[in-house]
Amino acid sequence: MRLPLTALLLASLATPALRSDEGMWTFSSIPVAKLMEKYGWAPDQAWLDHVRMSSLRFPGGSGSFVSKDGLVLTNHHVGHNFIQAVSKDADFVKDGFVANTREQEVKVPGLTLMMLQETVNVTEEVEKAVPQGANEKVATEARVAAISRAQKAMSEKTGLQCETVSLFQGGEFWIYCYKTFKDVRLVACPEYQVAAFGKDDDNFTWPRHDLDFSLFRVYEDDKPYNPQHYLTWSKVGTKNGDLTFVTGHPGSTSRLYTVAQMENDRDVIYPPILRNLQTNVERLREVARSGEEGERQVSAQLMGMENSLKALTGYHKGLLDVEQMARVRATEEELIAKVKANPNLNALAGDSWDKIANAMKDYARYTKENQLINLGSSPSLFLAVNYIRSLKEADRPEDDRLQGYKTESELTRISESFENGPTNDPSNDIPTFTNYLNAAQKALGDDHPYLSPILNGNSPEDAAKNALSNTTFNDGNFRKKLIEGGLKAIAATKDPLVALAYKIEPYMTDFRRMGDSFRSVVTDHQARIAKARFEVYGHDVYPDATFTLRLSYGTVETFPMEGTLAQPYTTFYGMYDRAESWGPEARWASWSLPERWDKARNTINLKTPYNFITNNDITGGNSGSPLVDKNAELVGLAFDGNIHSLAGTYYFDPKMNRTIAVDCRSIVEALNTVMGGKHLVEEILGR
Amino acid sequence: MRLPLTALLLASLATPALRSDEGMWTFSSIPVAKLMEKYGWAPDQAWLDHVRMSSLRFPGGSGSFVSKDGLVLTNHHVGHNFIQAVSKDADFVKDGFVANTREQEVKVPGLTLMMLQETVNVTEEVEKAVPQGANEKVATEARVAAISRAQKAMSEKTGLQCETVSLFQGGEFWIYCYKTFKDVRLVACPEYQVAAFGKDDDNFTWPRHDLDFSLFRVYEDDKPYNPQHYLTWSKVGTKNGDLTFVTGHPGSTSRLYTVAQMENDRDVIYPPILRNLQTNVERLREVARSGEEGERQVSAQLMGMENSLKALTGYHKGLLDVEQMARVRATEEELIAKVKANPNLNALAGDSWDKIANAMKDYARYTKENQLINLGSSPSLFLAVNYIRSLKEADRPEDDRLQGYKTESELTRISESFENGPTNDPSNDIPTFTNYLNAAQKALGDDHPYLSPILNGNSPEDAAKNALSNTTFNDGNFRKKLIEGGLKAIAATKDPLVALAYKIEPYMTDFRRMGDSFRSVVTDHQARIAKARFEVYGHDVYPDATFTLRLSYGTVETFPMEGTLAQPYTTFYGMYDRAESWGPEARWASWSLPERWDKARNTINLKTPYNFITNNDITGGNSGSPLVDKNAELVGLAFDGNIHSLAGTYYFDPKMNRTIAVDCRSIVEALNTVMGGKHLVEEILGR
Repeated sequence: MRLPLTALLLASLATPALRSDEGMWTFSSIPVAKLMEKYGWAPDQAWLDHVRMSSLRFPGGSGSFVSKDGLVLTNHHVGHNFIQAVSKDADFVKDGFVANTREQEVKVPGLTLMMLQETVNVTEEVEKAVPQGANEKVATEARVAAISRAQKAMSEKTGLQCETVSLFQGGEFWIYCYKTFKDVRLVACPEYQVAAFGKDDDNFTWPRHDLDFSLFRVYEDDKPYNPQHYLTWSKVGTKNGDLTFVTGHPGSTSRLYTVAQMENDRDVIYPPILRNLQTNVERLREVARSGEEGERQVSAQLMGMENSLKALTGYHKGLLDVEQMARVRATEEELIAKVKANPNLNALAGDSWDKIANAMKDYARYTKENQLINLGSSPSLFLAVNYIRSLKEADRPEDDRLQGYKTESELTRISESFENGPTNDPSNDIPTFTNYLNAAQKALGDDHPYLSPILNGNSPEDAAKNALSNTTFNDGNFRKKLIEGGLKAIAATKDPLVALAYKIEPYMTDFRRMGDSFRSVVTDHQARIAKARFEVYGHDVYPDATFTLRLSYGTVETFPMEGTLAQPYTTFYGMYDRAESWGPEARWASWSLPERWDKARNTINLKTPYNFITNNDITGGNSGSPLVDKNAELVGLAFDGNIHSLAGTYYFDPKMNRTIAVDCRSIVEALNTVMGGKHLVEEILGR
Repeated sequence: MRLPLTALLLASLATPALRSDEGMWTFSSIPVAKLMEKYGWAPDQAWLDHVRMSSLRFPGGSGSFVSKDGLVLTNHHVGHNFIQAVSKDADFVKDGFVANTREQEVKVPGLTLMMLQETVNVTEEVEKAVPQGANEKVATEARVAAISRAQKAMSEKTGLQCETVSLFQGGEFWIYCYKTFKDVRLVACPEYQVAAFGKDDDNFTWPRHDLDFSLFRVYEDDKPYNPQHYLTWSKVGTKNGDLTFVTGHPGSTSRLYTVAQMENDRDVIYPPILRNLQTNVERLREVARSGEEGERQVSAQLMGMENSLKALTGYHKGLLDVEQMARVRATEEELIAKVKANPNLNALAGDSWDKIANAMKDYARYTKENQLINLGSSPSLFLAVNYIRSLKEADRPEDDRLQGYKTESELTRISESFENGPTNDPSNDIPTFTNYLNAAQKALGDDHPYLSPILNGNSPEDAAKNALSNTTFNDGNFRKKLIEGGLKAIAATKDPLVALAYKIEPYMTDFRRMGDSFRSVVTDHQARIAKARFEVYGHDVYPDATFTLRLSYGTVETFPMEGTLAQPYTTFYGMYDRAESWGPEARWASWSLPERWDKARNTINLKTPYNFITNNDITGGNSGSPLVDKNAELVGLAFDGNIHSLAGTYYFDPKMNRTIAVDCRSIVEALNTVMGGKHLVEEILGR
């Protein structure tokens, strides 16, 4: 029988079994059978333990131990802020850094690394704590309380830092316990211009030529720490087609979203954000075009904003892809059909998709206003509002607090960031805040309970200036006094920014609470769907990313690009090609090289494999993740995905989604030939 | 007033004035005012004459004089067949070639170059020849006769080779007269592997690294010819943003098609062709995968077919692009509105769009059968059918003959190609012909007047074997005898291929004639629209490409690619990057280098600009066209377009459509450092 093309397509796409090397697997449920079937090899428990305990979590990223003396490898862009923070006598970001001796290694205050030591599945005891017949709110609260108890018990038992992890959108609850390292020192990094060659232009792009690595060292008792496990650095690297594993901490994905949730993102969430970003980018571009001074003023902000625009456009494009979304829809429809065909499952989750779809409709209305009253356009004002909210939430019983304001550590973190103050002077926020107030005014009117205290009869521009130009909020002593004085001091202050924050916080918090009530419907039914999915497909599926340790497998692999096949590797030849081809006049001098790198073309081995691509399934948070081979040897360092990987937030497209990694051989070549780091090469290769 | 986004978009897109560097302009109507406005510079008549008379037409391509001794520059791929034809004692295609002395230059039999010496617009006298009130058929015949007279008169007057050129789809008629050069000798070419680095994988791709040039020399009276005009070779080349001109012979575009015609291409023409190509590609890929012998057998054919698939998919994608097609539609709607608003124009062309749309409907039905009875799947059988048809057409009065069979030279060309015989042995056609007969049988049934003599009760496979395996058609003597014996000998032959051709030719030719009658409606109304367009917009538009000399202007310019900006240039660094990155195991060894090039990395100046991109508007036939700067100096050599340029068949997308050229500096560097061509560098740079 010949099926028409579309029928064939849908038939093959709807298969729930993963056809490709898709998946960010927890270390406790590696798809061994699938690996054996496809590659004739799968890791055993010793391999998994070794790789897990060599892996580290950085703030917002990943890393790994790579020597017996506690040397740690991560991306330059994961270490960037810390490198900048310790650049006191010299500019390590601009000029790079290599410690020639252990004594020269620079202590990084505030940097904590975490190694996943122990995990325990507490789903059963959490579910037992839910009273029979409890409604959604009661059930949620019972779960939260049970989890909190379990976490506390584990912390006491292990003496480790334990965190709750909700997997499969509430289908499973785990406690993850970490050994933490608080004495971390900077050992080496290349120049920013080489680490991020191509700058934000080349972000999410392939081919790439980025030496995006930095080396730190963990100390204990003022001595280099000797980790029980560290990755051996491969001397041979990979070749096209080789099997690779990524171990690291993917941040967040939404692949288990129902189609209704994805459509909400597509139609409700992204469009206004993208419009707003686009407007701001256009405005900043105008300033940049106005002359050298204008460009200097806005270039960093513009670069960041264009990058957000690129990323968000990529997520949105993923949702607009008709062919891929048909695949997502077919998978969902198959699951719904199977659930409805089974009376037990039907009772559990038969109407969950409809319930979520209805909540999304309410949520869409809520979101529209929410987007108009958020404070993304003034980070300073938001910092103040958020701190005030945290003080008020702290006065409530824990169960009644908003998500994110429940635990001591959450509240402490908010207080600390208030104490540290805003990154930029509040007056810098005036243009974006004005722009945003204009939009809010048009949509909500002057009398809206949120807008009215802000505008107070003034134009948006004047209102923004009133709040943000004459404030002493940037003064650390002022903020310290507010912290000491508590809510009373805040209520009494005449500082325009803080006073305004105090006025608008109640409405914002009430509004947020309303949103949470929609969310609890979604949370409950997501969990029901997750349970039904387990019943239908078994545990042979992976949970969405939660910034916890995962393993992904794949191969070095090309993809179709601009009419040809993308090259699987680049070399240093490619870096010089790019530098010569663009010339220094490119915007932001994106493809310029520091002088010693410009000269190094005569000494460096130009053939050295530099960056490469694999079809490993990763996402933001995996930055700094090691790529290892079957022998658990370190062959690469993940630092980005191609532009098509952005759709990976919602689904994995095996044809186009690629991980981009620094080749282990290029780091050795760079340390040896250009950076003056031979002693470090000896350390990592000497073994 | 704030317009919604879509309205704004359409408003700005509908402007008939060309916003970009679009256009393949005839030398008699360069948009001087537009150039002055945008670049503050435009060519004068002397510049235009100099560039025109330095330009040459190759069979299927373009070229230019580049020295006072008649040295001619074109692409390697334009010269390829001639290089192959003269490779007798050595393999110039594989190993490259440089003549060390004039004596070593190799005469290329059958290669004629043409230089456009004189043009004359005969539209007025042609239109005068059409009797008042004549119907479409009579009008067309009257025009054809008048053009034929004008062409003959010009040939006699000038002694040059004169051709008729119909511009603006019959809106203008011209006679173009060429000086021809018949003694052309091969002077130099690099290895095919370097000229076409990346092979068909990289075709229509950017970035590129192709040394796609060859040098020939024109002789007269056995001495190097001294052309009146030749291009000076630039020593400095271009930089990003520089103004560039392309002079050459774009082959064919369909930009003046009505939307109905484009939709016919999109919905009727391409889908079956693409399906068929896809099927054949899959089949050949299977053979290639079957083993080394299989791969050897089909790799050349597969490469060509994948390339066609890439190109046709690109054309089709252009038509499927909703945003761009909305622009095309808006432009058409604006013209229709203006025509209908003017009583004279309305009488001339008011219903022409509808007439064409209706003809397209008839034509769609016709096309479906036509695609089933064409002989693309057996070039040998087609050669025979076409020759038989030409003999029969020759017996008719010239006015009654099919297009393409009217003039003596057309008929002679068909006879010559029959005499030369098929490129491949007819038995090679069996698999594709079988495949095609299967499809035709399913669609038309065994009793169809075309299929029935072919199948004659057999299965498609046996029928294909019967016709193509026991034929002596590949024997030159046999074909010669058939030519000598004329139709009688053909009617009498027992050769299965020729006998079959004789049987099926009548139906095929009748069917073709039917198609021509639809076409005459289209032709007439296209001409009416063209005239109306002149009235509305003046002559500030350019005609579709007709493989006649055109000038295009533009600048060296990047485009958005895979999340970043495409580099405007490549260098030799990039070629070695690609070679090292892919390794020799890539399919077809696409990115492998010949040994002397592999070694040359230590001597060649790796920084040398190699290929570059511009937004000049070109298409197939422009291969080998020189790029010149304001000083009319040669700065590059066009050899391809990026994947987005394929949509250029239907419209020019200024954001994405790019010309790809070899940089003049890389040819000098290659001749000097690798190819042993210092004496040629002296000739072109010595001046």
